[in-house]
Amino acid sequence: LGAVPTSDSSLATLLEDGPSFRRILHANLETWKEARYRAVWLKIPTEHAALIIEAVREGFVFHHAETTHAVLVTWLPRLDLPTIAADWDRADSMTEAGAAAAERARLVQRAVEYVESTPLPANASHQVGVGCVVIHPRDAAASPRARPRILAVQERRGPLRGKGVWKMPTGLVGQGEDLADGAVREVLEETGVRTAFRGVVAIRHAHGALHDKSDMFYVCLLEALPQAGTAAGEDIPIEMQREELDACAWLDLAEYLDQERYRGSPLYTRINEAITAAVAGAGAAEAPMFVHSKLPYGYSYYKGSDCSLYHSSHLVPAPPPAVPV
Amino acid sequence: LGAVPTSDSSLATLLEDGPSFRRILHANLETWKEARYRAVWLKIPTEHAALIIEAVREGFVFHHAETTHAVLVTWLPRLDLPTIAADWDRADSMTEAGAAAAERARLVQRAVEYVESTPLPANASHQVGVGCVVIHPRDAAASPRARPRILAVQERRGPLRGKGVWKMPTGLVGQGEDLADGAVREVLEETGVRTAFRGVVAIRHAHGALHDKSDMFYVCLLEALPQAGTAAGEDIPIEMQREELDACAWLDLAEYLDQERYRGSPLYTRINEAITAAVAGAGAAEAPMFVHSKLPYGYSYYKGSDCSLYHSSHLVPAPPPAVPV
Repeated sequence: LGAVPTSDSSLATLLEDGPSFRRILHANLETWKEARYRAVWLKIPTEHAALIIEAVREGFVFHHAETTHAVLVTWLPRLDLPTIAADWDRADSMTEAGAAAAERARLVQRAVEYVESTPLPANASHQVGVGCVVIHPRDAAASPRARPRILAVQERRGPLRGKGVWKMPTGLVGQGEDLADGAVREVLEETGVRTAFRGVVAIRHAHGALHDKSDMFYVCLLEALPQAGTAAGEDIPIEMQREELDACAWLDLAEYLDQERYRGSPLYTRINEAITAAVAGAGAAEAPMFVHSKLPYGYSYYKGSDCSLYHSSHLVPAPPPAVPV
Repeated sequence: LGAVPTSDSSLATLLEDGPSFRRILHANLETWKEARYRAVWLKIPTEHAALIIEAVREGFVFHHAETTHAVLVTWLPRLDLPTIAADWDRADSMTEAGAAAAERARLVQRAVEYVESTPLPANASHQVGVGCVVIHPRDAAASPRARPRILAVQERRGPLRGKGVWKMPTGLVGQGEDLADGAVREVLEETGVRTAFRGVVAIRHAHGALHDKSDMFYVCLLEALPQAGTAAGEDIPIEMQREELDACAWLDLAEYLDQERYRGSPLYTRINEAITAAVAGAGAAEAPMFVHSKLPYGYSYYKGSDCSLYHSSHLVPAPPPAVPV
């Protein structure tokens, strides 16, 4: 709690006692404001959620939350601390529940508008998804299977359930997970097929996903890796994830692309054009997609973290440097 | 509150009274579990934050939060409601504050592990940023300014403050804002220069950004638009945002790229190679970048929302369809 040192056990007692917590928080805010601090972040573990309302009564609002905690924030420069405290006390003293609730909603609205007018960074805004076009190693030209085939699935849940539509394996990339790694993981989980990431074919940016977040969806090209025990010319075996999928198969790319659902969609018409061009050019330097360079030693703004670069295959990556920067 | 209809004023009273709220929530959870619901989402406005701990005591954990509200979630199938309630009552009855706090932390940890083992979608995982390479319209070949120039800025805040490093204008794309629109907006806000989006040059994916979110950063190519009152051959005027920037100028691209900070960085060495190739090829169909197609009438999984597609310039976009799909 900043300027007020507390022992662990007095802290535990304090965290049980909302009014004491609020009093100490208030005193600290005055100190920090005088010291010309600007932002105050307050991380409250889920088990101490009872303290959140005390912080709200001091002008804090949520910034974000994870399963284990909430993070609240306030911005000190123009915060009128005595007025805020008095306003909340007044709302508390109202005898009619509806009027008190309306007044509290107004006070929160005022704090929200204030915080949103500052340069404080917003909460995370996006989920990132991958759609995986997995090409089977090419069979000999003389074979009836010499045409490109991709891994196609039918979903067991969601809007496409039971409709017989073949789609590419899709999924969300995790926080802290690289895009290319996420694509390889999704294919492995859904189909048991090991793959190598080849490139980004296209990116679809859309809005209004779960809880109104935005959604960045990467159509990726991957190549199935030969599997131990599978002879050349044999299909790479599939182990379908039965909880999520109803069907999974190596499908002729032309058959996949020609599905009515895609032909009727301007978005999928273009995505499928991009897939066609990328599959045709796979392996060639001029393939019309972004290839992937992992930069384990690269300079990143976020120290201590790997980073990845996706760029045109026109650019041949330079060899990695010998020493960390 | 689902199965228990309440009038507005009785709801206001209920929202003041934690134990009543908890009792009704508990009864509803039993009903919903019997009815074989799986996920329960609970959206609690910031002004009613006092109720959050009541939901936590019934097995809920945070999913996410925005300034105005928190969203909690629980997953019913294997939730042992009587045990959870009894465990929390037991923690409340402990007389030693430290022991009670430890027990509550353990109960939350159990709920977190349970929720994270279910197929519930995670919180938003990414922020999305843009770096804007803005090229000045080409001067006549005979002019000493015929070499490509870009808009370069020096930041007033952050790690580069006062270091004399020229960088491209950068910023975060908002939730619900298209990438191309975000890039054009950032350049306008920081420099007053109106631009047209030309393409994505490269994508840098990194982790460990604010609050441990991941960061998807798009290096974009934009072209400055001629400005009313500016004659051909004259520089497009700049209106620098003084709160964020210390300097802003049209800089020779070669001079920009040759800065020591970039030459020493494996990441920026590659990004700068991509920028060089994209600027050299700007306008040509074979430019090594992803161009942008807005699909206002396109099919999107998220109905009612525009969406954008970024894809190789090898693919000439088809004309937009005449009618909404």
